[in-house]
Amino acid sequence: MIALPAQVTVREVGLRDGLQSIATVLPTADKCQWVRDAHAAGMREIEVGSFVPPTLVPQLADTEAVLASAKRLPGLFASVLVPNLRGAERGLDCGADLLLLPLSASRAHSLANLRRTPDEVLAELSRIRAARDSAGSKTLLECGIGTAFGCTLQGEVTAVEVLRLLQAALDAGADRVSLADTVGFADPAAVTRLFEAALRIAGNRFWCGHFHDTRGLALANVHAALQLGVQRFDASLAGIGGCPQAPGASGNVATEDLVYMLESMGCKTGIDPAALLVLRGRVTRWLGGEATYGALWRAGLPRTFRRVLAGSGP
Amino acid sequence: MIALPAQVTVREVGLRDGLQSIATVLPTADKCQWVRDAHAAGMREIEVGSFVPPTLVPQLADTEAVLASAKRLPGLFASVLVPNLRGAERGLDCGADLLLLPLSASRAHSLANLRRTPDEVLAELSRIRAARDSAGSKTLLECGIGTAFGCTLQGEVTAVEVLRLLQAALDAGADRVSLADTVGFADPAAVTRLFEAALRIAGNRFWCGHFHDTRGLALANVHAALQLGVQRFDASLAGIGGCPQAPGASGNVATEDLVYMLESMGCKTGIDPAALLVLRGRVTRWLGGEATYGALWRAGLPRTFRRVLAGSGP
Repeated sequence: MIALPAQVTVREVGLRDGLQSIATVLPTADKCQWVRDAHAAGMREIEVGSFVPPTLVPQLADTEAVLASAKRLPGLFASVLVPNLRGAERGLDCGADLLLLPLSASRAHSLANLRRTPDEVLAELSRIRAARDSAGSKTLLECGIGTAFGCTLQGEVTAVEVLRLLQAALDAGADRVSLADTVGFADPAAVTRLFEAALRIAGNRFWCGHFHDTRGLALANVHAALQLGVQRFDASLAGIGGCPQAPGASGNVATEDLVYMLESMGCKTGIDPAALLVLRGRVTRWLGGEATYGALWRAGLPRTFRRVLAGSGP
Repeated sequence: MIALPAQVTVREVGLRDGLQSIATVLPTADKCQWVRDAHAAGMREIEVGSFVPPTLVPQLADTEAVLASAKRLPGLFASVLVPNLRGAERGLDCGADLLLLPLSASRAHSLANLRRTPDEVLAELSRIRAARDSAGSKTLLECGIGTAFGCTLQGEVTAVEVLRLLQAALDAGADRVSLADTVGFADPAAVTRLFEAALRIAGNRFWCGHFHDTRGLALANVHAALQLGVQRFDASLAGIGGCPQAPGASGNVATEDLVYMLESMGCKTGIDPAALLVLRGRVTRWLGGEATYGALWRAGLPRTFRRVLAGSGP
């Protein structure tokens, strides 16, 4: 029997990866309440938005305000996505705890999403690292290798290319690297193969698994990664989201389902899934008729469910 | 890395476990077409109905006709559920390839579902075995231990009790034993623990894993069982179904999602998921507004998907 991690961090990315695909612009006050309620439910890592041009993603134009609000919550580690040096400079100025730079292993997706090749993104990562260091900032730099299991635009993405970019991202100055199945092409066997190789390269600089649930396999994929010792996963409340450049992609694994699975398995998250279900109800009401996903909300927690006590805290 | 089974059998149970919870009575001709189309897609094991009193489950009153039709398909192994000796006698008369006797490990569920205690069901199993043997029939007897991970009525069901019943079912004459998460309380870690113990007891007389997707964990649970070498899983097209005595339970793992996951992982099923998606569309049209589940149908197969060739056939 394989030992599973005793503690697992679930990072909420619904406010960024989720909302960026949603037309209904959520008011800043609602976003701040979402962050506060998630924190109250026990979440300690939240991606609060992204510093992209507001004309491109009006939904995320208030990231600075949401980040400022999040920074007032005790123990909350707040991250933002940045597409380039300009966004990174804003993130550093605002004191984000972590900047996530996405790097598509698919050249076609990279060009469509960032209008840069993967290697041009690596060059930008070097500039961001230099800016972070010269600012004397403690902000962490994460490079998330996306479309790591294939791409709706390009088709196949080889493991050799994904691992080359992962190594190159570390060499270019990323403090942490992550792997993302942006469009839901992964399966548990592919996760085992790619994550095992990635962990050999990155060691404890490996940060996070990011699985979209497009074809229903996200939790099985998490299970495969957990068995390799991966201790951090992205998730989106109510499974909201998609990918603007990947037609047919649905959202991340639903936060409430993932936390329920982990707590059931004895992996401590510090998060109360019952509180997440209440928050889910609130957020789905805010979002009106937007597409939401996930399964736990229909049946609720099993009557035998006992949350693992978090001990000294998350 | 754990070796996964090279070949896995997916048994369609939508015509029984699925339809029994659905009010819309599907005409016999449609059921027979469903069986034919599933066979044409490569499925070789189908649970075609159950021999319960037609007054209790009008939906399944035509099981004899569906079974007769299924028996004409080359290489198809057709099973039926039987709740008692009387049903088993009908199954033997009709030449079913396998009779599935459900046995709820939850005493409360057993009383609600079969109006018998688990030990009374074991006594009936002995009588069914005697009837099979005295008829000189080749029909296999499977005992499916249900509510094996807990029960909506009773709450906790101990592993000790589940394993006692599994051993007792073998002793009472079951050729095969299976474990069912009837109400969606299982998680991958619990599956690993219980299935490992069950496999130690039953060896190659262990038959099938049966997971309801009530809380979205069915595919992750399958992944855990696969890693122990389990090679047969129940599934329900479009995830239809539930449990009449288990409020809030939704259907089995969706056949098309399970086959897609297995084929993606390199576990040969002999089944074409694209053909299943076509069949899913037909069945969901027949069922009108009934609740259906599953994820693959929304996005379709990935453009990189290559089905594992089944070699010498399923």
